[in-house]
This record gives sequence, structure tokens and C-alpha cells, in this order.
Amino acid sequence: RVDRERLWAALMELARIGATAKGGVKRLALTDLDRQGRDLVVGWGRDAGMSVTVDQIGNVFMRRDGTDNTLPPVMTGSHIDTQPTGGKFDGNYGVLAGLEVVRTLNDHGIRTRAPIEVAFWTNEEGSRFVPVMMGSGVFCGAFTLEHAYAARDTEGKTVGEELERIGYKGDQVPGEHPIGAYFETHIEQGPVLEDADKVIGVVPAVMGLSWYDCTVSGMEAHAGPTPMHLRKDAMQVAARIIPEVVAIANRYPPYGRGTVGMMQVFPNSRNVIPGQVKFSIDLRNVTGELLNTMHEEMTAFVEKTARETGLAIELERVSYYPPCPFHPDVVGAVRNATAKLGYPAMDVVSGAGHDAIYAARLAPSGMIFVPCKDGISHNEIEDAKSEHLEAGCNVLLHAMLERAGT
Amino acid sequence: RVDRERLWAALMELARIGATAKGGVKRLALTDLDRQGRDLVVGWGRDAGMSVTVDQIGNVFMRRDGTDNTLPPVMTGSHIDTQPTGGKFDGNYGVLAGLEVVRTLNDHGIRTRAPIEVAFWTNEEGSRFVPVMMGSGVFCGAFTLEHAYAARDTEGKTVGEELERIGYKGDQVPGEHPIGAYFETHIEQGPVLEDADKVIGVVPAVMGLSWYDCTVSGMEAHAGPTPMHLRKDAMQVAARIIPEVVAIANRYPPYGRGTVGMMQVFPNSRNVIPGQVKFSIDLRNVTGELLNTMHEEMTAFVEKTARETGLAIELERVSYYPPCPFHPDVVGAVRNATAKLGYPAMDVVSGAGHDAIYAARLAPSGMIFVPCKDGISHNEIEDAKSEHLEAGCNVLLHAMLERAGT
Ligand SMILES: NC(=O)NCCC(=O)O
Ligand SMILES: NC(=O)NCCC(=O)O
Repeated sequence: RVDRERLWAALMELARIGATAKGGVKRLALTDLDRQGRDLVVGWGRDAGMSVTVDQIGNVFMRRDGTDNTLPPVMTGSHIDTQPTGGKFDGNYGVLAGLEVVRTLNDHGIRTRAPIEVAFWTNEEGSRFVPVMMGSGVFCGAFTLEHAYAARDTEGKTVGEELERIGYKGDQVPGEHPIGAYFETHIEQGPVLEDADKVIGVVPAVMGLSWYDCTVSGMEAHAGPTPMHLRKDAMQVAARIIPEVVAIANRYPPYGRGTVGMMQVFPNSRNVIPGQVKFSIDLRNVTGELLNTMHEEMTAFVEKTARETGLAIELERVSYYPPCPFHPDVVGAVRNATAKLGYPAMDVVSGAGHDAIYAARLAPSGMIFVPCKDGISHNEIEDAKSEHLEAGCNVLLHAMLERAGT
Repeated sequence: RVDRERLWAALMELARIGATAKGGVKRLALTDLDRQGRDLVVGWGRDAGMSVTVDQIGNVFMRRDGTDNTLPPVMTGSHIDTQPTGGKFDGNYGVLAGLEVVRTLNDHGIRTRAPIEVAFWTNEEGSRFVPVMMGSGVFCGAFTLEHAYAARDTEGKTVGEELERIGYKGDQVPGEHPIGAYFETHIEQGPVLEDADKVIGVVPAVMGLSWYDCTVSGMEAHAGPTPMHLRKDAMQVAARIIPEVVAIANRYPPYGRGTVGMMQVFPNSRNVIPGQVKFSIDLRNVTGELLNTMHEEMTAFVEKTARETGLAIELERVSYYPPCPFHPDVVGAVRNATAKLGYPAMDVVSGAGHDAIYAARLAPSGMIFVPCKDGISHNEIEDAKSEHLEAGCNVLLHAMLERAGT
């Protein structure tokens, strides 16, 4: 069993770096604060007897040897960068839960057969530099190192320069680092566990997502003198499409999701009929087939609306992540550990993307969720209970032991 | 008959002050460019033999004496300030049409019984300083001089300071300037005349308007992990209300208008369910009764939507202008002049507010509309035909003559 207080203390100490007045954390990727956070965690890793490797995109791997070091390591990890108004647990918990597992093994003098590794991946959040999940994405070959190096923040600084500056541009070629199995513990970032009063979420899969920009083009005109029948009101046409995003999601339960989160109106003036309205659409589901059906219904609805209203509507897909089913062996190990420890548990499909979806392209992978208060994350008020964090960490410990062997 | 080319030449010369690359005009109220425009028009007025009075809010009155100067003047006017991306005709036409009337009377040596005045009112557009129609509003006592003086632009400069700086803070107390009747010629700013192929719009009234801010408050949450049934999606609730704004307008034809022109989404992120959506509602109609009915239906619909969805919705009325019926004598003079001159004409209720609605609180008033290209104004591509501008000016000449007497 892990040490609840030690885990909590580590989380609180790391959260001091970049702490915000409202109790959150602002520690953007590759800033000086990120360096301080990295140095702290790496120091803890070395103190726990681990050796440290850094790859060219700044992913850090901390290794505890096994009795058979020819075996690929059983790895766990997550990220320590945060959103601009982030919390103490998102990502950080997954890394420090890994550290706590190693500390616990040390306390009990347990040697595993396969080595154990604790990783943190560079720039998961994608707030300062796009794309999101950059370190794990480069690692698994989803995009190139050069592409990632060239990403710029709003001040024009690149990932390559910033990695160098903070001293975390390592030597190892990303991906040239074997993984036997990958576990990631994470706060749920949703309300399902709390709503069902469960402590552990066994994560069989991560939903796929399609992101779109939808642009409706009408004709800008004065709100007073323009009779209703002579208008080409882009806002009204947008308002026809917005409810359909939710209707489509509701037609494919329980994992259908549909969200319009962003909107821009031109010229955005009280007494001008909008000439153009641009909004985002986020569709998710758990299988590629369902997601594809949702995509087709969305496309058809937009075409029908364009025909019926006579306004031009453009629907552009700007991102796509396929659904990611996790490996039965890793999911099974999580399930076994949960059962053995007797925690109230349920399956929770992850609605959000995580580094684990990229790790899963290279090795059997899975995730463990714990509840977070009101399902809230990416927010300074993000919160979680120490006993839930402890439970997730215990499940991680036993699942990793099952895979690593003793 | 007026001189079409002289009128057009004056419009084009004034439009050079603040001319934009795209063929429009940017001459915001009380800027150096506004001063240059004012100086040019005042110079033309003096050259035409008129005397000039400036009041404390910078309204300018140019006077051509009559044969009986104990009579209150028959006045015409409009404004010469523009939108940031404004055109050459909005406002400017009404002022220069007045000047052209005087020049024509001079050409023919016609003396009127009552004096003739050409006015331009300060800051009609309200782009740099709110409220709109500031000069005529102070003049008729809709709000105080002190209130207007204190209005600030985005740089913190006040109307009082800027009036002083450009030398147009006059001595006359606003409103202490008699008016016998007030005419205003203006481009329609809508598509009705063009659509019906008419040259003159006789304006019996200006619609009233109610402006609202509607704020829907839900709960911000992650677009992936939050199941559909646990959401409080402010965007979806806004999308229920938006079509009703148009439905209400369509229930009260032909003058019902309903527009949602402005929207702000919080936090406005692609993968966050909006926690708050704020949008504007603009409702208009031609009688106070109809506008009030529309107001009540809007309020009831918002309350019903709040009840049905469980989200908090605030509907705040931020502005109200009552409908303004014009005076039968002045409207009659316009109608007579149009008939006499034989122009294809129709009645057009003004959907937009004008200085004439404030003048109407003090004196019998009315307006003359001419078509503008595609009904477009408040846009650099605003355009109008010189023969239409000439026709409106001829109607103004004859209507003013009827009222002033010879
Ligand atoms: N965990 C997380 O917030 N990922 C960002 C991408 C997404 O919206 O799923
Ligand atoms: N003429 C004009 O654009 N007035 C502004 C107020 C309104 O929207 O009617």
C-alpha cells in the first residue's frame, strides 16, 4: 500500500511552483517554472534511486532497474505542464503516483522482474505550443521532431529554443526507448465517477474526436431598415445548426458528445445583422464507426441547411483523433488490482485525449481514473480527495506489479 | 430645381476629408478631421451668405434670413460625423442637400418669408462617444449637457475637452434656438426603395427600438468527459432563444424587426462547454403598442426557457427609443413636393434612428429618403446615384418652400 500523506505532500510541493492566487497552478510548458518543476521531480526520482534519460523532445524517463533488465520496462507517467488557469492534479497526479509507487517498492525492498519507469511527457496541454500531447506524439511518430521544434508561442519563441534554454533537450531519439506496458493514472476530468459514487474508473478506451470550424456567410445589413424577408442573417442560420450538434450526439448514446464551444460574429455589432458567423463543433464517440456516422449526419445537416436557407455554409474538419481502445491485458491488470483492493469501481470511457493514446500506438496501454470535485478540471478550482488519489495509486502499484512480475 | 452636379461635387469634396483606401470615409466626431469637415461646410455656408451659430454641444446652425425674421426658421440638417468604416452619404447628404437648397434659392434670388436654416448635429453616429444622436439629444433635452460633456472615448478623452480643442464649443444654450419645422433628407440605409424601384421615400414615422443584453449562465465543463445529460450548456440555451427573436418580429409585420447582432462566449474554447453566453437583442416596430407586445413575448419566452432548461437567464433592457410618428404637416409637405415633381415614391417607415426623432420633440418634423445601393450603409462601399440625391434635394427644396412661404 502506498503512503497517502507522502503522495499528497509531493503534489502540494510541486503545486507551489507556479501557484496562483486562486489556488491553482500556472506552469506552462518549457517556461522557467516548467524547468523548476522538472528539476524537482527529477531530483525526487534520483533520491529514490532512479536513473534519468531525456529524449530530444524533452520527455523524461526515470528508471528503477528490475532483476531482468533485458525486459522492456513497465512504464507509468503523464505530464507536469499545466493550463494557464490549471489545477494541481491534472497530469501531475499521474507522474507523482508513479514516483509514489517506486518509493513504496523501495520502502518494502521489493525488486520487480522487469524494470519500472516513471515518465513525464513534454507539453501535453498544448496551451503554449500546439499541437497538444506533443512529447508523446513525437515519441510515437504521430508527427515529426522538426514539426514540434518549429512550433511557436504567441511571443514567437520556438519549442526547440525553449527546450535548449531550460536544459531539457536530451540526446535520445524519441521512440527509441522500449516500453513493455504503459499505465497512466489521471483525474477523470468529468462527473461520472462522482455521480455514481465510485472511487476507481477502469478505462477501456478513449473516445475519438472530430473538430470542425463551421462558417456561415450571409449579408451584413442594418438591423432597423432591413425587412425580415430581405435578410441573409448568418446568426439565425448558425442557430439552426447549433442544436443539431447536440441532437446528433444524443442519437448515439451513451458516448456520443456534441459541443459548440467557440463562436465569432462579424461585425459583432448590436444593430447590424451578422454577415458572418464562425463557430467550432466538437463531436466524440467511442468507435470509429459511430464517430463516422455522426460526421456524416453533421455534414448532411449542414448541406441541407445551406440548401434551405440559401446561405453559404462551410464545414471544415480541422482535427481528428481516432478512438483508442486500450489493451485487454493492461485494462485487465487494472481491473484485477481494483478487485483485489476492493475499491468501488466502474468502467469509464475517457472523453478527453491523454498521452496514453499515443503510448498505445507502441505498447499495450491503459488508464486509471479517480474522481475530481464536480468533474472540473482545466480550472484553478480543480480538486480531488487524498483518499481517492491514494486508491488510484494503490491500483497502479498492484497493476504494475502484475505486469512487471516479482 | 437644384444643381445635381454642384451637389455631387460638394459631397465628393467633403468626402476627401477622412477618405479611406476603400472609397469610404472615416471622420469620427470631434477629431481633427471632423473640425476640417465642419470648417469646410461652415465656409460654404458663409459663402452662400448665411450667418452661423454654434451651441454649447457643438451643433451648428447656418441661417439665411427670411422676409419676416420674427418667424421661427424652417430648418433642415443631419450630421457630418461618420462611422469608423463609414461612407460618403450617411448624414453628409442631409447637410449638403440643405446647402444646395440655399445655393439654389440664391441662384434664383428667391426670398422666403420664414428664415431657412441648415444644421449639423454633433456626434450622431455614437461610434467614438456614446450615446448616439448626442447633439440633437442634448438640444431636445433627452439628456443633459453635463452628461454629454462627460462621455469618454477609448483613450479617455471627453466630449467637453474635444469640443473645446477643435473650437466648436459654442455659446448658445442647446434648445434655445427656435425651430418652425424640421426636414431631414437621408439615404434609406435599407433595401426597400431599391427593391420597389422608387426614387423618393416619404417617411411617416421612425420605428421605436428596444435593446437588450441577454445572459445565459450554465456550467463550464470539459467537452469530452461530460455526458450530455449532466451538462448545463449555455450555448445550447442561447440557440433556443435566438430563433425566437426573429419569430417574434415575424408575428408583427410589416414593421416588426428582430436581430441578434452581437455574441460573447465564455470561455470560448473549442473543447469547453460554454459556461456563459451573452448576446444582444434588437427589437423594433412602428407603434409603442406593438413594440410593447414584442417586449412582453420576449420576456415570457426567456422566462419559459429558463424554467424548462433550469439555467439562469438574465434579460436586461439597455436602451429604449419610442416610435416617432412625424408631423402630418411636414410629411404632407414632402408628399406634395414629391407629387408636384412627379418622382416615383412610396412611404417608407425609417427603421433606423435619426436626429429628426429628437427634433420632432420640439417642432413639426419629417424626413425624405433616397435609395442607397443594395441598402448598404455604415460601410465603406455605401453608394448612391447622383440623380436620386438630386431628386431628394428637389423634394426638400419644394417642401421647405411650402413651409417657409414666399
Ligand atoms: N485531457 C485533455 O484535456 N485533452 C485535450 C484534448 C481533448 O479535448 O480531449
Ligand atoms: N441611423 C442609424 O444608424 N442610427 C443608429 C441607431 C439605430 O440602430 O437605429
